[in-house]
Amino acid sequence: MSARILVVDDMPVNRRLMQAQLSEEYFEVLLASSGPEALDICRREMVDLVLLDVMMPDMDGYEVCRRLKAEPTTLHIPVVLVTALDQQADRVRGLEAGADDFLTKPVRGLPLFSRIRSLTRLKMLTDELRVRAETAARVVAEPWDLGAETMGRNGRLCAMMARPEEALRVKRLVGAEHMIMPAVEPDAVLNPTEPVDLFILDLQAEAFDALRLCSRLRSNEGTRQTPILLIAGPEDEARITRGLELGANDYCQRPLDPNELLARIRTQIKRKRYDEGLRRSVQTTIELATIDPLTGLYNRRFLDGHLAQASEQSVRSGRPLCVLILDIDHFKQINDTYGHDVGDEVLRQFAERVRRSLRASDLAARIGGEEFALLMPDTDLASAEGAAERLRELIEAEPFEVQDLAIPVTSSVGLASLNGVEPRGLMKRADIALYDAKRAGRNRVVVASDLSTAGP
Amino acid sequence: MSARILVVDDMPVNRRLMQAQLSEEYFEVLLASSGPEALDICRREMVDLVLLDVMMPDMDGYEVCRRLKAEPTTLHIPVVLVTALDQQADRVRGLEAGADDFLTKPVRGLPLFSRIRSLTRLKMLTDELRVRAETAARVVAEPWDLGAETMGRNGRLCAMMARPEEALRVKRLVGAEHMIMPAVEPDAVLNPTEPVDLFILDLQAEAFDALRLCSRLRSNEGTRQTPILLIAGPEDEARITRGLELGANDYCQRPLDPNELLARIRTQIKRKRYDEGLRRSVQTTIELATIDPLTGLYNRRFLDGHLAQASEQSVRSGRPLCVLILDIDHFKQINDTYGHDVGDEVLRQFAERVRRSLRASDLAARIGGEEFALLMPDTDLASAEGAAERLRELIEAEPFEVQDLAIPVTSSVGLASLNGVEPRGLMKRADIALYDAKRAGRNRVVVASDLSTAGP
Repeated sequence: MSARILVVDDMPVNRRLMQAQLSEEYFEVLLASSGPEALDICRREMVDLVLLDVMMPDMDGYEVCRRLKAEPTTLHIPVVLVTALDQQADRVRGLEAGADDFLTKPVRGLPLFSRIRSLTRLKMLTDELRVRAETAARVVAEPWDLGAETMGRNGRLCAMMARPEEALRVKRLVGAEHMIMPAVEPDAVLNPTEPVDLFILDLQAEAFDALRLCSRLRSNEGTRQTPILLIAGPEDEARITRGLELGANDYCQRPLDPNELLARIRTQIKRKRYDEGLRRSVQTTIELATIDPLTGLYNRRFLDGHLAQASEQSVRSGRPLCVLILDIDHFKQINDTYGHDVGDEVLRQFAERVRRSLRASDLAARIGGEEFALLMPDTDLASAEGAAERLRELIEAEPFEVQDLAIPVTSSVGLASLNGVEPRGLMKRADIALYDAKRAGRNRVVVASDLSTAGP
Repeated sequence: MSARILVVDDMPVNRRLMQAQLSEEYFEVLLASSGPEALDICRREMVDLVLLDVMMPDMDGYEVCRRLKAEPTTLHIPVVLVTALDQQADRVRGLEAGADDFLTKPVRGLPLFSRIRSLTRLKMLTDELRVRAETAARVVAEPWDLGAETMGRNGRLCAMMARPEEALRVKRLVGAEHMIMPAVEPDAVLNPTEPVDLFILDLQAEAFDALRLCSRLRSNEGTRQTPILLIAGPEDEARITRGLELGANDYCQRPLDPNELLARIRTQIKRKRYDEGLRRSVQTTIELATIDPLTGLYNRRFLDGHLAQASEQSVRSGRPLCVLILDIDHFKQINDTYGHDVGDEVLRQFAERVRRSLRASDLAARIGGEEFALLMPDTDLASAEGAAERLRELIEAEPFEVQDLAIPVTSSVGLASLNGVEPRGLMKRADIALYDAKRAGRNRVVVASDLSTAGP
């Protein structure tokens, strides 16, 4: 996929050269001649990747990179540093400034393009989430912070190397910062017994094909989003390119420099945790909008939306659908006698008993103070009545133990089945049945008569 | 990126052949020998794409495709039909069954792989959203339905063809179902004056480079997610492949068959609307968790999360931060005198006046019944006090017009600035200042003394 690349270089000739190369490959190019200009563009415009010259007057590439990675609005943009020197120390310095990769001038097409494609592909995957997470993160107030020292440490790394002693070497190199789990066969990589933050695969191994393993990890739902770091030989460029295409995130070439390896691992672990933070905050926000915080059951809003879909489906498929509305008898007395804390605990335990009686396809919600509803798809009235009666008995059977109290609780249940009337009618009829159950003396199940409200 | 492909064919030799081809390219392969088996696998496992033989006993490929596209749990999986014949009528029949593309046996590697890569890339982009939208859609109860006839119609198509008469031809072919906006130069495509549901670009045009245009559309934020359909000549395969790589979604080869063109356009428009539905439902759900439904301002939960971040930022940067808490004076009397409907309308209008007085960086929330808060970053106490006083005057200046009433409303404001104490302290001090404003006779602004609660 095409992408928008910002080229930052103080030399006009370098900018032109890079622009020509990228444009030829159908990338869109933005240009900046200094660090401050680059920062400004990244803040204002959509940029998919920054190609950043290291040696610039005033503000060098390391500093620009550090600033991009420190700002919440720009830290998600991948940065590739470009330098004239190929000094190991410079590489590490760049990676430690937060760069995602490092290329040496003259920049050759193939490694450049495969790197750009792999980095922008990953960015686009999280862009969808990021946009939404910006709002969500404020609700959830995730404590994640890409800039924090610890974000890239204490990872769980699963390493599959050519030989066992190589895995030990990796362990020696990075074991002080991370936990290393050596894998001796592909199965251990594909079905890890513990959660993994990063896979390290040895492209030079002969006993297994690291590219195949890479593709398997990317095809499995559980490992699709776990980063992969390839260990390659000095001559492995074609296979590295292939690996990046298949979904590997980064690579390190032999001879392994411990600091470079550490820096690359940190970058991958940070990014993984950042993505997880995004997902979690969107997820949690969605839950906040759907879950009743006291009982953990769904809320009224969720039930209403779900009921509309479930009844439409039921009408279309001709399969039955039942709704139960339950109410705790004399709940006000419990609150008045023992206080709200005890009342809340009774609600929680009540919800727990409801949850225990659910089948996988049922859905339970708290729809009011002491009122709950159960949606039972594919269930006819007779089976639903049986389930309602069992639930009523389960509530009555044992008193609720709260603090040192044993509080007897009973419930009334109204029950209705969908008979072609519109969804609101269904809840209404279950509600009327509940009211009848209350009037008839509580602690009982009443089934709505199909005829009672069949009129207009 | 690698992906998991389900190959469906009743002939063992065909399955083996296809498996070998795909595996060679590092795709993961699942096999099914019949339609029912394929449906079962798609329901149970993660599948990124289905390669579906058309001619099978019992249930043919068209029927399998229709069923996959009718089920909410499987409709997002791309389907490529494979047939022995190259009959135009079969192609169209397959596309109308909901297939994303159509390949003719013997299936050659290049078109197959470029198609798989393009379709699975698009799928992975929406997977992130889809997982979350499954929950969200129940809350929002989006009425979108991929199966509906109308989902693929009434699109707004921007067509950039080799010659104006070609654009007219496209209009004749599909104008009955869609609105066609012909573009005569690239600028009209890149900066459309109206929303566009699909771009149609002519690969055979000489006056412009359709691939370049494709890459521009994919690099712009506004058009990144709008589908692109390429019109190609019979010999254009290499450029089609390049176009799909750059982010085009589909293509149609000359001589153009009207039914095929219509079917492909419908598929693209449906998918776009499906994706938009996903985005909207996630977005709306997030808003439900953050917005006060009565006034449209943020809710307490959002303010708390945001305040934590804003005050941390203020401490780090050393820039000031102020909080205002506003309360409608004697609001209970309004409710008691005029009823809740009028009271709610007063709250809405009050919120509107607050909103009008905001600067872009301020944040307003309703934090209780008649209580509101304003967060003012980069604002010192003196400026905030000025703003608070102006807001108080704005409330008092004109009575609130509700129904035929003119209700005079005043407000009390408490104000505090962050002085190194922790965020909760900030809200607390503003609250105490508000209480002081009430006690001093209401309709006034009181600034929290920095010393008042500086102690432990």
